[in-house]
Amino acid sequence: MTAGAGRRLAELSGPALASTLTADSILVLPTGSIEHHGPHLPLATDLLMAELLAGRIVDQAAADGIDAWLLPSIAYAKSDEHAWAPGTFWIDAHTLLDTLIGIGRGVAETPARTIVFYNGHGGNVALLQVALRELRVRFGLRTFFMNVSIPAGETELGFGIHGGSGETSLAMHLRPDLVDLAGAVDATPAHLARFERIGFAGAPVQFGWTSDDFGTAGVIGDPTGANAETGAQLAADLVAEGVASLAEIAAFDPRPGGAA
Amino acid sequence: MTAGAGRRLAELSGPALASTLTADSILVLPTGSIEHHGPHLPLATDLLMAELLAGRIVDQAAADGIDAWLLPSIAYAKSDEHAWAPGTFWIDAHTLLDTLIGIGRGVAETPARTIVFYNGHGGNVALLQVALRELRVRFGLRTFFMNVSIPAGETELGFGIHGGSGETSLAMHLRPDLVDLAGAVDATPAHLARFERIGFAGAPVQFGWTSDDFGTAGVIGDPTGANAETGAQLAADLVAEGVASLAEIAAFDPRPGGAA
Amino acid sequence: MTAGAGRRLAELSGPALASTLTADSILVLPTGSIEHHGPHLPLATDLLMAELLAGRIVDQAAADGIDAWLLPSIAYAKSDEHAWAPGTFWIDAHTLLDTLIGIGRGVAETPARTIVFYNGHGGNVALLQVALRELRVRFGLRTFFMNVSIPAGETELGFGIHGGSGETSLAMHLRPDLVDLAGAVDATPAHLARFERIGFAGAPVQFGWTSDDFGTAGVIGDPTGANAETGAQLAADLVAEGVASLAEIAAFDPRPGGAA
Amino acid sequence: MTAGAGRRLAELSGPALASTLTADSILVLPTGSIEHHGPHLPLATDLLMAELLAGRIVDQAAADGIDAWLLPSIAYAKSDEHAWAPGTFWIDAHTLLDTLIGIGRGVAETPARTIVFYNGHGGNVALLQVALRELRVRFGLRTFFMNVSIPAGETELGFGIHGGSGETSLAMHLRPDLVDLAGAVDATPAHLARFERIGFAGAPVQFGWTSDDFGTAGVIGDPTGANAETGAQLAADLVAEGVASLAEIAAFDPRPGGAA
Amino acid sequence: MTAGAGRRLAELSGPALASTLTADSILVLPTGSIEHHGPHLPLATDLLMAELLAGRIVDQAAADGIDAWLLPSIAYAKSDEHAWAPGTFWIDAHTLLDTLIGIGRGVAETPARTIVFYNGHGGNVALLQVALRELRVRFGLRTFFMNVSIPAGETELGFGIHGGSGETSLAMHLRPDLVDLAGAVDATPAHLARFERIGFAGAPVQFGWTSDDFGTAGVIGDPTGANAETGAQLAADLVAEGVASLAEIAAFDPRPGGAA
Amino acid sequence: MTAGAGRRLAELSGPALASTLTADSILVLPTGSIEHHGPHLPLATDLLMAELLAGRIVDQAAADGIDAWLLPSIAYAKSDEHAWAPGTFWIDAHTLLDTLIGIGRGVAETPARTIVFYNGHGGNVALLQVALRELRVRFGLRTFFMNVSIPAGETELGFGIHGGSGETSLAMHLRPDLVDLAGAVDATPAHLARFERIGFAGAPVQFGWTSDDFGTAGVIGDPTGANAETGAQLAADLVAEGVASLAEIAAFDPRPGGAA
Repeated sequence: MTAGAGRRLAELSGPALASTLTADSILVLPTGSIEHHGPHLPLATDLLMAELLAGRIVDQAAADGIDAWLLPSIAYAKSDEHAWAPGTFWIDAHTLLDTLIGIGRGVAETPARTIVFYNGHGGNVALLQVALRELRVRFGLRTFFMNVSIPAGETELGFGIHGGSGETSLAMHLRPDLVDLAGAVDATPAHLARFERIGFAGAPVQFGWTSDDFGTAGVIGDPTGANAETGAQLAADLVAEGVASLAEIAAFDPRPGGAA
Repeated sequence: MTAGAGRRLAELSGPALASTLTADSILVLPTGSIEHHGPHLPLATDLLMAELLAGRIVDQAAADGIDAWLLPSIAYAKSDEHAWAPGTFWIDAHTLLDTLIGIGRGVAETPARTIVFYNGHGGNVALLQVALRELRVRFGLRTFFMNVSIPAGETELGFGIHGGSGETSLAMHLRPDLVDLAGAVDATPAHLARFERIGFAGAPVQFGWTSDDFGTAGVIGDPTGANAETGAQLAADLVAEGVASLAEIAAFDPRPGGAA
Repeated sequence: MTAGAGRRLAELSGPALASTLTADSILVLPTGSIEHHGPHLPLATDLLMAELLAGRIVDQAAADGIDAWLLPSIAYAKSDEHAWAPGTFWIDAHTLLDTLIGIGRGVAETPARTIVFYNGHGGNVALLQVALRELRVRFGLRTFFMNVSIPAGETELGFGIHGGSGETSLAMHLRPDLVDLAGAVDATPAHLARFERIGFAGAPVQFGWTSDDFGTAGVIGDPTGANAETGAQLAADLVAEGVASLAEIAAFDPRPGGAA
Repeated sequence: MTAGAGRRLAELSGPALASTLTADSILVLPTGSIEHHGPHLPLATDLLMAELLAGRIVDQAAADGIDAWLLPSIAYAKSDEHAWAPGTFWIDAHTLLDTLIGIGRGVAETPARTIVFYNGHGGNVALLQVALRELRVRFGLRTFFMNVSIPAGETELGFGIHGGSGETSLAMHLRPDLVDLAGAVDATPAHLARFERIGFAGAPVQFGWTSDDFGTAGVIGDPTGANAETGAQLAADLVAEGVASLAEIAAFDPRPGGAA
Repeated sequence: MTAGAGRRLAELSGPALASTLTADSILVLPTGSIEHHGPHLPLATDLLMAELLAGRIVDQAAADGIDAWLLPSIAYAKSDEHAWAPGTFWIDAHTLLDTLIGIGRGVAETPARTIVFYNGHGGNVALLQVALRELRVRFGLRTFFMNVSIPAGETELGFGIHGGSGETSLAMHLRPDLVDLAGAVDATPAHLARFERIGFAGAPVQFGWTSDDFGTAGVIGDPTGANAETGAQLAADLVAEGVASLAEIAAFDPRPGGAA
Repeated sequence: MTAGAGRRLAELSGPALASTLTADSILVLPTGSIEHHGPHLPLATDLLMAELLAGRIVDQAAADGIDAWLLPSIAYAKSDEHAWAPGTFWIDAHTLLDTLIGIGRGVAETPARTIVFYNGHGGNVALLQVALRELRVRFGLRTFFMNVSIPAGETELGFGIHGGSGETSLAMHLRPDLVDLAGAVDATPAHLARFERIGFAGAPVQFGWTSDDFGTAGVIGDPTGANAETGAQLAADLVAEGVASLAEIAAFDPRPGGAA
């Protein structure tokens, strides 16, 4: 648990939670991973991005008048694409889904009606999308999902999805003590560019890859040009985007006559 | 099981399969759904799109020299977003994933090394993406996924995702006997357009919706202008795209020195 | 999904289903398998028998005034006794049971109260019997089960249970294009006749066999004399029996004062 | 655990088991139930029949030179058809199957290669048949199943399947102290006779019943004429049949050239 | 099932149970194991201790006016620490917990509100403690747990936890025919005494051991001085303690104003 | 994830982990809970105790030459005894066990062979003990467990197990900003003292309680006299004890000739 000022849900007492939360409260769950991120980044890269950015987003949103709260993070998650690499801890799909169901049940017992997954790990996306509906249908919660969305670097051809330029810059901003750029090498799978249809998230044809498919040491992208300044800007953008998203979530109503 | 010429895997005998398939064979699994699709479309809309188009794709690909085969379809799938509507049959996430694992295990026992999910139902996407990796990691299969990807109609503001213009046109082409446009009404959730970030697949913020959220009778889109000619063109485009995708899959190698 | 006239449940729209079905409606679920059936029969033999015969039965029953409907088939099922043979796809007991529970839940959400398993694969029988009670107890459905019951051929000593005389004749009638009698050999496990008590279904002592126990290429029986005429007669008998069974199911009431 | 002479497996020490059992050893697992059996029979009727008869069978078989051993019984089993009645304890299908898998794994770690289910409860049959194959495929064990098979009484029209004439007579022989015939009434569901096809085990159409379907107090049959003499004869017949079955199991080999 | 006088729950009929049990009834479930216990003790040692002592306790408690009843035992349980030894049968944690849930559900359907686990096997303790709360929370039952608690022998340094002095003496008293002291050797893991903190149950640091860790043949303790007289005294003490515990359970109310 | 100096495993890169850890490395997993702890303590009390103390222990142990590392914590755990109270998040036994298995699998893929659960929540104890053996048997890991063991306060009669004197003092030392002693009341269940045998962990008879059994607002104990100085002393004692335990674990060998 991170020390933090104010909007950390688990720092409330039970009675304080019961009297403080309302149907307008929004609970934000950071979801990360503990997995191989190349020689220059810590295993917890995805976790620290999700957790630290979600904290900033929640704090800023609260300052803006949105009743947002940070939940304790999910550290161990869906990292089977890195199962081959020592240092990766992965939870199978069934178990992670059931854990999310348990957390959703807990949310449903509070006055709050809204949970937002703030996700730092690409490997979690599909399962979190499954959970979005599961928690909605089981508990009647309003459920939302957003990613720590990092633009690919110029040299990365759209393939900077793991330990690449943006992620490394962000880590250098958030936890410079944990990044060692000395070990960074360009591991952009440029050869994938010849495929028109098959690709990562968003491509018309997706494939079941593991991170050693691309002949690299667990990196997919080019971290060599990363720097903390870029990371600071990315963080600022992500926080701004996250806050705006929470504002939209607060106002969201999918019904035809719903408010906005 | 559909009658069909030639490339239906389950129409082979066991020994014929063992001697016919090779490591180059590509097995295509149509995944559909049985669920409420509005008053103008049959419950099996997603299934028939997936199955009939996959059949055409496989046949055309085979004619082009790709060793493609059609597997029997998954009819009952992840339709919990329509659980509220009589006529919907939904399989929970755990069970559908385990079914896909069973099918993957079967593929792994053949000489083929490749399975392609050809999916007709949006609600299946996330779980199929989970399965992509699961089958890769468990069985060492090459795994791919593509959708029956239907462009939104002009009046649909990008929200024609269920029973809307394109899907209805396609159904009118594929199975005109099962479509009754008399019952079709415009149920485009135009009010969602005021939300910048929250939306369906591809939006930066996604939400756990059920199809009755939008105040409609199980339709999200505008089927009123649908017609079989548009459907025929859509089908031709989808078949062409599917065949090209299988060709790319046949050549695909994610390794740095891999062929293409 | 098979094209068919009228009584295919999944060809209805959701609203049509809701207004058409009543508490008297009977939903028939064909259950097959995709598994090694010897060199002369397709992998889908059990599926096509169940699906095609169930279709005929439902159509005839409907013509006779019984409100019967055909559900989409279960293709992948409990075929672990052929797990050794490439081309077999098997779903484990837990997963298949949970799939049947999901289907039962869907039936329970319609106005219909009755599901009938029409089963083409011997390996499914025990699990379907488990499901009979599970769906009854969970959902309060009336649940029934019947087999594509094929008499053993004269030369088969009662052991023609897989790919033998009757099944092959039936396949020659139903899908002559998929049968290649050239490859058929007599694989009756005549040596089992010396056992008085141990045997297949119905024997006082049953055993856990796999289809390679009997030293054959996945056949248990003697298909060599099979022919389409016999198959046509078998089919007619099975349809008549199936229709009569649905009539009895329609009238069935197990309570002492129940109607008949 | 029952006191008994000699052939109780769990009365051996671990080292004694390891040196005593061989690949010829046959381990017999009694499977019963704890469930409502009407006002005249104890909840444990099926358990005591299975356990006591299996004990006699094993002892007699051992005296005949068959290396048979009695395993501790399964008391709690698949009794959901009596779930409505206080005193019934039922284990769901998944859990009971997994328990049987655990026991099979234990057998596979001994020198023995054969397990026989000796079953006293009709509601267990289907699940035990599933387990037959599961243990065979998972552990390579030889697996067999037989029932405490009780002929229907003359007045029972074939419907004496639960607490009826034979079962009551057998209980009066085995544990007269636990039977109170004063409470017995004829609860034969004679009205079922009008159904030609639908019936209990062996009927062409089976149905998912619960024991309160038949308007009785948990009995299906006519116990009124039961008596201990008939029970003694039944027991003798069942023991003789069981011993003969174990002899056949000992000699059984399903392979074409297998011994008999 | 053990023959016994009177207080055996499963010897009641269903209607008798329904009219005899009340909210004051206490149902005692013996939990044992079938596992390697060294060369001098039977595999069923833990089962017979739990079952026979629980029987005596229930009988004595009933004589004292407590409405106690003995449930059929759990024979196969959590013995994975002896999985290496032939003769051990172990049920995995998930399955055993689910079995206990099934039994708890059965208890909840009777008029009784209290279940007591009387446990003879150390390896079951943790799982039974999990079940204590599970059955309380799921079914609202009052749930209790006690062990066949055997003092360590003088020479055992507190390490006589499996097949040692007390357990062997108790077995010699309860079932002298099953104990062969000739094979007994001192297998006290005296070398563990040098560890201050790490130890078995009750130690500040516990460890995940298997019984072959200690270099012995499945014994942890010193059975060499065991004798039936000590066993008789132990049994008398355990019965007295068990009866007193049931009396306390009968009077137990954890609420501030609860009776005692 | 907490910022920390050095021995945080997830702050390593994958390659650094692979080259830094050895078979002597000890990985410490803090296990906490998010649950109602009375009006004076935060929901995360157990988590912060486990995490912060484990961090100190690991740091001190490392300074003493023990190759100890801190794993990311488990925040959401087995809190069903507080399920009634808003603010409690609980994970069911199956899912938490499977999560621990996933973590154990991750540990097994590193060079380290030892995992230590450092537990701050009483409700986790039994399940962690189950996991101790599960991870040992599945992965061959050396597994250990210790509690944040807090002595009961003088006025608590041994019942200060949740939100009482010691825990509150410790929280006041560790995170004074999160404790509000103003809300603290004495909620010692003094009435339990009249029960000789039934009690919490360590009592001869244990019971399945929920925290509202005792008529309190989620506290079991007397926090009124808590103070940070006592907490500081407790923390120092716990750290010293934890370091000594890790030293013993480092040297531990259960085999007769094992080193110490």
